[in-house]
Amino acid sequence: MNKVDVSLVGVSGYTGAELLRLLLQHPGVQLSRVYGNDSAGQPIEQVLPSVAGRWTGTVRAYDADDVAEGAKVAFCALPHGASAAIVRDLRARGMVVLDLSADFRLEDLATYEKWYGSHAAPQLIGEAVYGLVELHREAIREANLIAVPGCYPTATLLALAPLLRHRLVEAHGIVVDAKSGVSGAGRKLALSAHYAEVAAGLRAYKVGGAHRHLAEMEEQLTALAGAPVRLTFTPHLTPMTRGILATIYATPLGTKLSAGDCEAAARSMYRESPSVVLLDSGSCPDTLWVQGTNRAYLSYCVDARTGKLIVQSAIDNLVKGAAGQAVQCFNVRFAYEEDEGLRGLAAWP
Amino acid sequence: MNKVDVSLVGVSGYTGAELLRLLLQHPGVQLSRVYGNDSAGQPIEQVLPSVAGRWTGTVRAYDADDVAEGAKVAFCALPHGASAAIVRDLRARGMVVLDLSADFRLEDLATYEKWYGSHAAPQLIGEAVYGLVELHREAIREANLIAVPGCYPTATLLALAPLLRHRLVEAHGIVVDAKSGVSGAGRKLALSAHYAEVAAGLRAYKVGGAHRHLAEMEEQLTALAGAPVRLTFTPHLTPMTRGILATIYATPLGTKLSAGDCEAAARSMYRESPSVVLLDSGSCPDTLWVQGTNRAYLSYCVDARTGKLIVQSAIDNLVKGAAGQAVQCFNVRFAYEEDEGLRGLAAWP
Amino acid sequence: MNKVDVSLVGVSGYTGAELLRLLLQHPGVQLSRVYGNDSAGQPIEQVLPSVAGRWTGTVRAYDADDVAEGAKVAFCALPHGASAAIVRDLRARGMVVLDLSADFRLEDLATYEKWYGSHAAPQLIGEAVYGLVELHREAIREANLIAVPGCYPTATLLALAPLLRHRLVEAHGIVVDAKSGVSGAGRKLALSAHYAEVAAGLRAYKVGGAHRHLAEMEEQLTALAGAPVRLTFTPHLTPMTRGILATIYATPLGTKLSAGDCEAAARSMYRESPSVVLLDSGSCPDTLWVQGTNRAYLSYCVDARTGKLIVQSAIDNLVKGAAGQAVQCFNVRFAYEEDEGLRGLAAWP
Amino acid sequence: MNKVDVSLVGVSGYTGAELLRLLLQHPGVQLSRVYGNDSAGQPIEQVLPSVAGRWTGTVRAYDADDVAEGAKVAFCALPHGASAAIVRDLRARGMVVLDLSADFRLEDLATYEKWYGSHAAPQLIGEAVYGLVELHREAIREANLIAVPGCYPTATLLALAPLLRHRLVEAHGIVVDAKSGVSGAGRKLALSAHYAEVAAGLRAYKVGGAHRHLAEMEEQLTALAGAPVRLTFTPHLTPMTRGILATIYATPLGTKLSAGDCEAAARSMYRESPSVVLLDSGSCPDTLWVQGTNRAYLSYCVDARTGKLIVQSAIDNLVKGAAGQAVQCFNVRFAYEEDEGLRGLAAWP
Repeated sequence: MNKVDVSLVGVSGYTGAELLRLLLQHPGVQLSRVYGNDSAGQPIEQVLPSVAGRWTGTVRAYDADDVAEGAKVAFCALPHGASAAIVRDLRARGMVVLDLSADFRLEDLATYEKWYGSHAAPQLIGEAVYGLVELHREAIREANLIAVPGCYPTATLLALAPLLRHRLVEAHGIVVDAKSGVSGAGRKLALSAHYAEVAAGLRAYKVGGAHRHLAEMEEQLTALAGAPVRLTFTPHLTPMTRGILATIYATPLGTKLSAGDCEAAARSMYRESPSVVLLDSGSCPDTLWVQGTNRAYLSYCVDARTGKLIVQSAIDNLVKGAAGQAVQCFNVRFAYEEDEGLRGLAAWP
Repeated sequence: MNKVDVSLVGVSGYTGAELLRLLLQHPGVQLSRVYGNDSAGQPIEQVLPSVAGRWTGTVRAYDADDVAEGAKVAFCALPHGASAAIVRDLRARGMVVLDLSADFRLEDLATYEKWYGSHAAPQLIGEAVYGLVELHREAIREANLIAVPGCYPTATLLALAPLLRHRLVEAHGIVVDAKSGVSGAGRKLALSAHYAEVAAGLRAYKVGGAHRHLAEMEEQLTALAGAPVRLTFTPHLTPMTRGILATIYATPLGTKLSAGDCEAAARSMYRESPSVVLLDSGSCPDTLWVQGTNRAYLSYCVDARTGKLIVQSAIDNLVKGAAGQAVQCFNVRFAYEEDEGLRGLAAWP
Repeated sequence: MNKVDVSLVGVSGYTGAELLRLLLQHPGVQLSRVYGNDSAGQPIEQVLPSVAGRWTGTVRAYDADDVAEGAKVAFCALPHGASAAIVRDLRARGMVVLDLSADFRLEDLATYEKWYGSHAAPQLIGEAVYGLVELHREAIREANLIAVPGCYPTATLLALAPLLRHRLVEAHGIVVDAKSGVSGAGRKLALSAHYAEVAAGLRAYKVGGAHRHLAEMEEQLTALAGAPVRLTFTPHLTPMTRGILATIYATPLGTKLSAGDCEAAARSMYRESPSVVLLDSGSCPDTLWVQGTNRAYLSYCVDARTGKLIVQSAIDNLVKGAAGQAVQCFNVRFAYEEDEGLRGLAAWP
Repeated sequence: MNKVDVSLVGVSGYTGAELLRLLLQHPGVQLSRVYGNDSAGQPIEQVLPSVAGRWTGTVRAYDADDVAEGAKVAFCALPHGASAAIVRDLRARGMVVLDLSADFRLEDLATYEKWYGSHAAPQLIGEAVYGLVELHREAIREANLIAVPGCYPTATLLALAPLLRHRLVEAHGIVVDAKSGVSGAGRKLALSAHYAEVAAGLRAYKVGGAHRHLAEMEEQLTALAGAPVRLTFTPHLTPMTRGILATIYATPLGTKLSAGDCEAAARSMYRESPSVVLLDSGSCPDTLWVQGTNRAYLSYCVDARTGKLIVQSAIDNLVKGAAGQAVQCFNVRFAYEEDEGLRGLAAWP
């Protein structure tokens, strides 16, 4: 298999670690250089002992020229805000960039600035493609800047896209009750990810429309629905390392909607999508079934008593919700099979 | 303090164990005898090593006359269906019974039979009082058969009662997304509570109106609202031992409802309720804060973007959702302070 | 019951939180003031929502005169090194001090300096009593400075003390393999307590004699044995919030030692100790049985095949290994029953 | 790559599930048929939803002729005792069998019968090869019946083999303190694997020489040492799904043994072993680093204060301790690269 030279900027965090794992296992990738400020100068097996013996490089301090010298493609796993300027510099050197931050996910600059502050490279927003392959496969084939979405948007968009595109549910009144594993909060130290404070309890956070990933979910859904979509979105911190389960409540348009109608819409939309697994109406996806994988499990159910449609959507936040999704975009962009290097199944239990 | 002789029927399960702990610490209780079929004949410290050295009795095989001989009050922690006949026999012997099963929670026999099958003592349904002190304090003072509600109903009813009684939200369209710790499934062996299958993942179950606790929630809420209430209720199994968090979505009646209005209604309704802790609108209750305690934490929030009201309600499923609630009923029935023996705070973290 | 005015210095950490819980529930304690640098000026229910509604004070900034003005007794839950100077100032104002740091646990100044660095109040070392009631009950009755031991020493000393005092095992060659919950690392942010990195895995740390609690264990054991004791001690970080289990391996002195001999020695030594629960030889203590309690479960077993003696010792690191132990010392010092305010049983499961 | 037809007998348990995952990902395996009594007749994606869409067969009821018709090689993941007769029947039909039970691991029939009861196929004991590739690589190349060892023996033998073969430690007095994730107990329902009873606590079990895996560990170590080896072995149940960490204590032969000497012996012995990762003396392997992988991490340390040698050994009990090890044996037997299909790295964190 032809190999593409790839570099990884931002190896110190969880998304970076997961990218490293996936890239090392991808038969079409030649991993060239990895960068990380916190760990620059250290052998990779000290930074990430789980790859000991598999790759022997040293983490490098970031330098745009050095990145461009080493590879034609860069995966950037950097914090929101910090990524834009680096992406700009790598694009200026002709690199194809897969950016895992939020910096290029929003088409609307004003929306970005409202949620994230000023933008270091607004001129690139226009060329960025939202990296959810299931929605933007064709555009990704040609893209040189791919803005890979995160975990909550991925779980939510995959569940709702068929419903809104096919006008099966009302665009307003949708409730997304999402439960995330703690790794979603990243590796930055905080009491909200300190073991003893989260290991045996459960809580919501940013209740009432305060989570900034709302912006990209609503922008994408509005485009799909052809009408403004506003979500009531409640994220929860769940005592597990990985996984997101979104339980979504929507009102059917018309009284006769069945789970089968929803499944048919999803089956049609995800016909060519190896990452999507559609379950029967009675089934409840378990985040255990997707851990470590690039798969999304969906299940649709109509409550006959109340008429509500209930959608369950489960992914691994660090894979289909981050690193795996980026590799999936890479595959589409460089004409590998869409699930090349991503066929690993969950190590259950 | 005067002491009341009390016996405990059903010590082998988690609710029984928690009752034993609470009764041994209650200054107004003289624990007389404990019963358990699985463990009959064994010293209590073999059945429950955590009480070793504190109580030295032996578990007895259940016999109605033996129970009635030993005490005037019985706590019954038995499975749904199995409890009714035993309660009937103990009531026939003049005992005051606190029943922790679902057998006497429903006023409507047909509803009971639809969800649970035939009823062994329908003639007692009329005398049973629903054991949620915050809603039925006065009736409990006089009751001889108290049907103590379980975990999902307690978390849901405490959150919604002030809203429906004060007509602050629409009676229809309410969504209850509830997350429970695994101990809620009891001690009966099942793959759905087998460690490896639930320890690192999350999933919903009985989606779409299939959970039988819906019946008592709707019966109680309908009485409060004076109008039929149907809930969309999704229970989830969360990888933690204890705790329930219910995240509840409702539509305000009128456009000007604020979190403050909801808090005022709750404050008024729970004025005399030591178990209810009302948090500020911005706060998110954590199930860790209630573990091991008889407390319920509530928080109300209005999403200004979508108009939805979001209520968070956190309890310990085995205490305020079971054993502690039963003791709270006992206190009201026997004129102890309502939180006597229940003032323990959470061992945080 | 007479009440003693008590203040708490260092409420922000886990030991401080647990002290607050226990002191609020103690019928002989009037909690006067609480101090914490990180949270000074905040209402206590914001710092520790689990006590909301139970105590209404505000956290104060530490000032020695302010502490001395408010109470006669101070519990200090401060980091090693930071505690000594504060204890000195409180003692200078005539307060009885229960110090939960390591600063006054060692009799030998040189040993202290080797492990912890320079000492701010070496002149007080002589008056400090090691606060393990089971070993030093009489001295604690008269002490004005009590150096409360931490979790690893408590679990280890309770297990080994009867054996060494009664010369049942060899003083050399003892191996202590100890497993601790993550709360033992405290509330200070660190990757080694970051949820995702410890929630699903297990590892040892400070292997090969590098943990500084070795010093106090060996000093105490050497005194008991009347001969130098050196331990091979391996601490492990276990994915649970609370609990320590020490599995200890020793060589019997003489070939005929039985578990019964060890139990007899322990029974004799802990005759008046309500905190110690002695299990039968076949039993394996579970840290779940002690969570939230001030109890220590011990079990002795001789491996007939190899001749080794195996001791299991389980405590809650934050209670019998910290806050509860301090309250136990307080009880002895002020002539309350030794387990006053400490009779809570584990909320199992 | 040439493919070998393979069938899997016993797909319902955790080892079977893990075998299925690994076999489906192995480029040299054509998975033919899978068998399971509990799930016979069900489509595989109902039994194991995590493989949905990847393999479409139906679980079959076991029948020796049916197995032999479908493949030349069988992996048997069956309980101890139940396996022997099935292995006998498959061998009688000329199949190469990789048996993951304990039934053929012991060379000495009397030892087997002492720990496991009567043996259904003692005549095959002589042809079985112990399936730890690192010790028996050459014999496995020719074997038709391979007895794949389980988790505790694998972690222990890999750690001790270099020391005993090179006579670096005394053969007596070795202590193995092993900590296992709960999946090691299998999928059979039991309170000892019921979530609420193990999720937040830790305990030892079968203390004092009562665990039957002692037999195979001692048989193998005695052969390596050329002298009788008896272990003091304490297994512990740890609140995590996967992983074993064995902390091993041994007495150096001679006073000058260094960690470097041990590492040199291990490096020499495991020169050709892709599964073994040797860490520096200061390092502590974390079971997280091996989860889902076929790797074993070893670290040697000498405690300068006490002279004890401490070895840490970490594996994933279901992979290197079971299913992965079986695939590794398959690779050696059929001349694939030893780590073919086993190169997956841990999804950290």
